[in-house]
Amino acid sequence: MAANGLLDRRLFLKRGLAFATAAPLVAAADEPWLTTPGAPFTNYGQPSPHEKGVVRWISANAAVPGNGISWTPLHELEGTITPTGLHFERHHNGVPQIDPARHALLVHGEVERALEFSMPALLRYPRESTIFALECGGNSNAGWQDKPIQAAAGYFHGLVSCSEWTGVPLRLVLAEAGVTSGAAWIVAEGADAFGMTVSLPLEKALDDCLLALYQNGERLRPEQGYPLRLVVPGWEGVLNVKWLRNLKVAREPVMARNETSKYTELMPDGRARQFTFVMDVKSLLTSPSHGMHLDAHGLYELSGLAWSGRGRITKVEVSADGGQTWADAELGHPVLPRAFARFRAPFDWQGQRAVLQSRATDETGAVQPARAALVAARGTQGYFHYHAIVSWALAADGTVTHTYVDALPAPAAQGQGFDAPWE
Amino acid sequence: MAANGLLDRRLFLKRGLAFATAAPLVAAADEPWLTTPGAPFTNYGQPSPHEKGVVRWISANAAVPGNGISWTPLHELEGTITPTGLHFERHHNGVPQIDPARHALLVHGEVERALEFSMPALLRYPRESTIFALECGGNSNAGWQDKPIQAAAGYFHGLVSCSEWTGVPLRLVLAEAGVTSGAAWIVAEGADAFGMTVSLPLEKALDDCLLALYQNGERLRPEQGYPLRLVVPGWEGVLNVKWLRNLKVAREPVMARNETSKYTELMPDGRARQFTFVMDVKSLLTSPSHGMHLDAHGLYELSGLAWSGRGRITKVEVSADGGQTWADAELGHPVLPRAFARFRAPFDWQGQRAVLQSRATDETGAVQPARAALVAARGTQGYFHYHAIVSWALAADGTVTHTYVDALPAPAAQGQGFDAPWE
Repeated sequence: MAANGLLDRRLFLKRGLAFATAAPLVAAADEPWLTTPGAPFTNYGQPSPHEKGVVRWISANAAVPGNGISWTPLHELEGTITPTGLHFERHHNGVPQIDPARHALLVHGEVERALEFSMPALLRYPRESTIFALECGGNSNAGWQDKPIQAAAGYFHGLVSCSEWTGVPLRLVLAEAGVTSGAAWIVAEGADAFGMTVSLPLEKALDDCLLALYQNGERLRPEQGYPLRLVVPGWEGVLNVKWLRNLKVAREPVMARNETSKYTELMPDGRARQFTFVMDVKSLLTSPSHGMHLDAHGLYELSGLAWSGRGRITKVEVSADGGQTWADAELGHPVLPRAFARFRAPFDWQGQRAVLQSRATDETGAVQPARAALVAARGTQGYFHYHAIVSWALAADGTVTHTYVDALPAPAAQGQGFDAPWE
Repeated sequence: MAANGLLDRRLFLKRGLAFATAAPLVAAADEPWLTTPGAPFTNYGQPSPHEKGVVRWISANAAVPGNGISWTPLHELEGTITPTGLHFERHHNGVPQIDPARHALLVHGEVERALEFSMPALLRYPRESTIFALECGGNSNAGWQDKPIQAAAGYFHGLVSCSEWTGVPLRLVLAEAGVTSGAAWIVAEGADAFGMTVSLPLEKALDDCLLALYQNGERLRPEQGYPLRLVVPGWEGVLNVKWLRNLKVAREPVMARNETSKYTELMPDGRARQFTFVMDVKSLLTSPSHGMHLDAHGLYELSGLAWSGRGRITKVEVSADGGQTWADAELGHPVLPRAFARFRAPFDWQGQRAVLQSRATDETGAVQPARAALVAARGTQGYFHYHAIVSWALAADGTVTHTYVDALPAPAAQGQGFDAPWE
């Protein structure tokens, strides 16, 4: 039985919520929208002006404004699909404005015949769709810092977004070129002015990668790779090369900047990890989360996201006492492999201090680690693949902040609530 | 074995597609985007200027510009999720611009306690998400006309869109108000200047309806009901009241305009159908479809959408000879109840004339009817719930047009191809 306010889902619905107020005798009827014709039809809809604060937060290099990131505001979103306009970005030299009539994909190297695919030619090929969470390998890397970053969930973990991608299976294009024996890698290059280049094992390329033309039903947005993006389900975001122009089949990886000076991590024993492609099982509570405030005592729904590059999420547990006790959260439907799964659990807050956590398990049996365990295994020279349990400290005044409680000795239960260890 | 060019999916992948061209010796490197820093980061992304033609097509009343519809361009989209900016619209007096701080939901009538829910109060309740295809009861009604309308697929069938909706289960709010015995209906009213009003059986309200706050991850767009919409999965779009302000629990339906002068259909035997809530099993090919042109002989992928308000799609068949022979199409994953299912099938076009069709079956065993059968059953005084098989005529010159071939005598097979009956 989980402690410190966590409830069984059935109790949640039986307790009565009572957040409404007694109705007035007469409904208000004097608002202008009730009596005045509304705005005309639009060809392409946009969010309400009242939601103009729900945006990607940009962290770009002042000296090189096209080099940086923008974050998905996970703490303001719901469900499992990320709005395309809020999908995170990582650019190295800005967003190229490509004319699709002048763009083509070259496939060459260790192949029987080098081929060029115009966009109209690619649109003739069979297509597949897949919904998955695309995550930057550097997402959540503030977690490696000695002190817990005090930032909203989306500005700490929001380099991950979940979309439906549709495109041509990469294996079809490679079959047409005829991969020669001895080939083991694909080197992919983008058409931005940075010339983004990565190496990808041929085995993955022949499995489930797509030459994506559509995202969430429509053609790609420019900042997501228009007109063509390599998508590599479940693997590091950097491999999902935008504005794809060049695929070279090779015997060896190219050892580009993003697989040598970056994406290589020094371990505590002096060895380095490289080509750590798969994104690990992960979860976080988005509501409540850092920066939110519980205004009143009573029932709350804890809600968050879980995902794994290795497959389907099978379980998410939540804790209100910093991981001493756990309760199973409810998973929304459908739970798709490598996609966001939304989890929910009821929580009764009567002013007690709490440390709120979630812990995800995937279908391979992998379990999201506590932060102390992850740091012990990887050291603090890493930068990528941070996926430890996230802890939000709920104070008696209702404020929610980020904490590293799970790195500290287990606190003793005390009185009405939980004696939060950061005090 | 299906005739007239339909192929087995495995053959499709074995035949070799060969739409690429031999690669140039040197890749082009002189495009400006390869050498010049790109555009800066954006807080909220938009489509490429090269895709500016992919919009909702507006059919509004010239005298009352806020009364009309806009269509989802199904023929330009892929996958199963409709971009939120392209979700179809049906408005009666424009789009109200509602300040959420001044909006509330009143629940009253046959209840133990009348209640008012502010938006912050509603946001305290537990939430659920569901992905489903929301379809106007009048979608595809040009199909009732004597002659086949010559319009793109989206401007004929595009009053349907598929989204992930997230909100508070309506049953929770009704439980809190305490529905009294004898109540059997809910009367829902919107906060637009038309005062849109509909009646909904209480049984459905207590089943799976949501008070939706989010669509595809973000808060509702104004034209989709911001800040609150009633969503009624699988049932006529008109019931999904936008800008929801009023829920009256009642013993009888209110007999509003949209359930008496509209949404009531005269049948051939003189009786009328009323309260025909559930949307029937349906499908159409989106590629190719009316107005498209096959530029060259060779292999094509037929692709389209199937859905049913009654549950999951279990089978989609395609025909290239006007329904004389059928082949199973491949269904994309996942197939979710009441949501769009994407289907695909290979087609070898060597210049033969063809009538391309799709026929969907759902998990209740319901099969999409031929047009002649639907018209025989319902007559031509109907206006709603047209869901017959859609036929696209492919001519020898590669043009694709809409035809009613299935209402005509079955033609004889002839020569290389199929002798299309409209000639």
